[in-house]
Amino acid sequence: MSENLIAINQDRLWGMLMRSAEIGAFNGGLRRIAFTREDKEMRDQFCQWGREADFKVSVDAIGNIFIRREGKNPELPPIAMGSHLDTTVHGGRFDGILGVLAGLEVLLSLEDAGIETERAVEAICWSDEEGTRYNNSMLGSYVYLGKRDLEEVYALKDVDGITVKEALEEIGYIGDAPMNRPFHTFLELHIEQGPIMYDTNTNIGVVTGSYDVRGMRIRFKGETCHVGPTPMERRKNALAAAAYMIAATNDIGLKWMHESAKTTCSKINVYPNKYAIVANQVEIGIDYRHPECSDRMHEELLAALEEAARKANCEYEIYDAYLFGQDKFCADLVQEMRELAPRFSDRVTELLGQAGHDAYNFAARCPTAMIFTPCVNGYTHNEREDIVPEETWPGVNLLLNIVRNRACR
Amino acid sequence: MSENLIAINQDRLWGMLMRSAEIGAFNGGLRRIAFTREDKEMRDQFCQWGREADFKVSVDAIGNIFIRREGKNPELPPIAMGSHLDTTVHGGRFDGILGVLAGLEVLLSLEDAGIETERAVEAICWSDEEGTRYNNSMLGSYVYLGKRDLEEVYALKDVDGITVKEALEEIGYIGDAPMNRPFHTFLELHIEQGPIMYDTNTNIGVVTGSYDVRGMRIRFKGETCHVGPTPMERRKNALAAAAYMIAATNDIGLKWMHESAKTTCSKINVYPNKYAIVANQVEIGIDYRHPECSDRMHEELLAALEEAARKANCEYEIYDAYLFGQDKFCADLVQEMRELAPRFSDRVTELLGQAGHDAYNFAARCPTAMIFTPCVNGYTHNEREDIVPEETWPGVNLLLNIVRNRACR
Repeated sequence: MSENLIAINQDRLWGMLMRSAEIGAFNGGLRRIAFTREDKEMRDQFCQWGREADFKVSVDAIGNIFIRREGKNPELPPIAMGSHLDTTVHGGRFDGILGVLAGLEVLLSLEDAGIETERAVEAICWSDEEGTRYNNSMLGSYVYLGKRDLEEVYALKDVDGITVKEALEEIGYIGDAPMNRPFHTFLELHIEQGPIMYDTNTNIGVVTGSYDVRGMRIRFKGETCHVGPTPMERRKNALAAAAYMIAATNDIGLKWMHESAKTTCSKINVYPNKYAIVANQVEIGIDYRHPECSDRMHEELLAALEEAARKANCEYEIYDAYLFGQDKFCADLVQEMRELAPRFSDRVTELLGQAGHDAYNFAARCPTAMIFTPCVNGYTHNEREDIVPEETWPGVNLLLNIVRNRACR
Repeated sequence: MSENLIAINQDRLWGMLMRSAEIGAFNGGLRRIAFTREDKEMRDQFCQWGREADFKVSVDAIGNIFIRREGKNPELPPIAMGSHLDTTVHGGRFDGILGVLAGLEVLLSLEDAGIETERAVEAICWSDEEGTRYNNSMLGSYVYLGKRDLEEVYALKDVDGITVKEALEEIGYIGDAPMNRPFHTFLELHIEQGPIMYDTNTNIGVVTGSYDVRGMRIRFKGETCHVGPTPMERRKNALAAAAYMIAATNDIGLKWMHESAKTTCSKINVYPNKYAIVANQVEIGIDYRHPECSDRMHEELLAALEEAARKANCEYEIYDAYLFGQDKFCADLVQEMRELAPRFSDRVTELLGQAGHDAYNFAARCPTAMIFTPCVNGYTHNEREDIVPEETWPGVNLLLNIVRNRACR
């Protein structure tokens, strides 16, 4: 690395990642659901690392954790790096975690290098990014930015009826750090979670923006009856309606996959869900993503929905919908990364994010961008998720130097 | 009614039905799941009515209840009438219940008429016919006949982990009445549970046999991954596979409905069933019924299953299957009913049973048949299920006189 560049301590970062991999270890990966005992243990470890380095550690009312290395001018908006430490039920060891711990490693590397920055630099753990427990993702960053109401989020319940507030109180992570502080820059480093970089043998992904991501939550209403004597033509079978829709959703994804689109239903609630009695209520969640514009798929899905309900003689309502990824990343910041990246690797690529990430929430608020690093075979949300360390460090070094450059301005 | 015929006490039977309608009343119908507090209350009431009439009341090890009016010759196999007092989660007030209480009414009417029969006559409540709680229907009659092992059935668990044995102990319905006693004749009166009699304005249905009824329980295995970046062509989406199969199942039913066939999936278990993570395991139950032969539908369903798994790149296994209704009802007994029925109504029809009934389990063991009475609009497994009393009594009187004739031989 040339003179004016600085480098992370790879062994230290790997050590933190492997320590994290012990907490909630499950089937070779991780099961560390938000606001559980395992999440608390990882949070405690993260805070401890921060305190051991004499950084300031604070927690806000939704449990987001901020580790701050102060700058010469504490009033200036800080450079922030953040991702998440929680996982899905079948999570890997790096999804989100790499971004949080790379952030902490950046702070530690700045410390090691004795660099005094103008602005503070923060490494942030956003609460419950995965949405596994409360069926609502990116809770921490949404609430931080005021895009969702704290009290409303506090009141969400998990399957056992435990609210977000109760769960946070249980693990002791309700703090009083101020929310919605302005950031000079927000950066998130993340494994790609897809196979593009692995397949093309690239190791720094300059993320220029996000896919157009949409979702609908749909409720079908039919009528219970006996699965035996009730004639087909008299039925209002809500599960048949849902199945037609899920099948059509997959078909639409297959139709547009040549444009790299994706469609999925991964969640269904059926009532009464018993043998011998036709279902009268079914809820499904449909997710669809397109690199540029999801409008055509959206139209096709709406038509499929109409047809699915008609064939099964049911009614439907779209009772919730989401949309993210429309705010593009900061062109100047992306250009800065594009120019600096070749100093760390000759295998740089540019791509769009396809998963949901906390960074998208900041794109309209401050200069924001992401760096992707490859994951083996693109496996993720699966315990087999893995990374090659040597293929990961160039991206983390890019992060460190971008942060250093911006924090010193 | 002519001289040699006897008649039930309509008001008494209606009174018993309306008393039953109070126990587990739910949304205008009943929710009286097997082996619950409501089921116990109804069982207690049924036993009390039997004891008040000085009939012998006994209970066997699976909780079947036998109310017996003794004959002159106690060693002769009795005439048995039976159905069930439990309901689905959205049950009506007559499904099963009418058959049990009509059986008791037959005993009471014989008593009123002072008729001494050669053989005993029994009114039986079979345990857990609906299968709502343990996902296995006709438990009582299966175990009684030794078609299922008592200990294996005892070990079945409900969603809360409560076994059949624990549930039976809790309600106090494990007795020592002998099982698998031979019956001279088995008769079950039941509402039709379909619209045929209501639509054709008939009120006695001589049931000549059953539909050919089959079921398969299928498990699809895929792989978890992220619903965002994972390319469509690399997915193994078990919920997509299941949806293709459920949709195809409904399509096959629509294709064969001109032959009065029916196909249904009413139950699905999805894992992990979370937003953002593709499902890796899904179980579904497929039920299909045809008046004569389900073979062609069976072949089509197997082909659809292969195709569903292929399209979603998943594996599958059929981990359970069932088949019932193949044993036809006793020709002599059906002929006897056919000849006697016009004495009670000029609107008699003959038809096949389409739902599952305990009677089918006896068809290969002893002369067995069923009598159907109409239900309004064919609604059943729905709280709106209803009957017209005047349209019901002819069938019950037919039952009474068939039983009297056979018991006096």
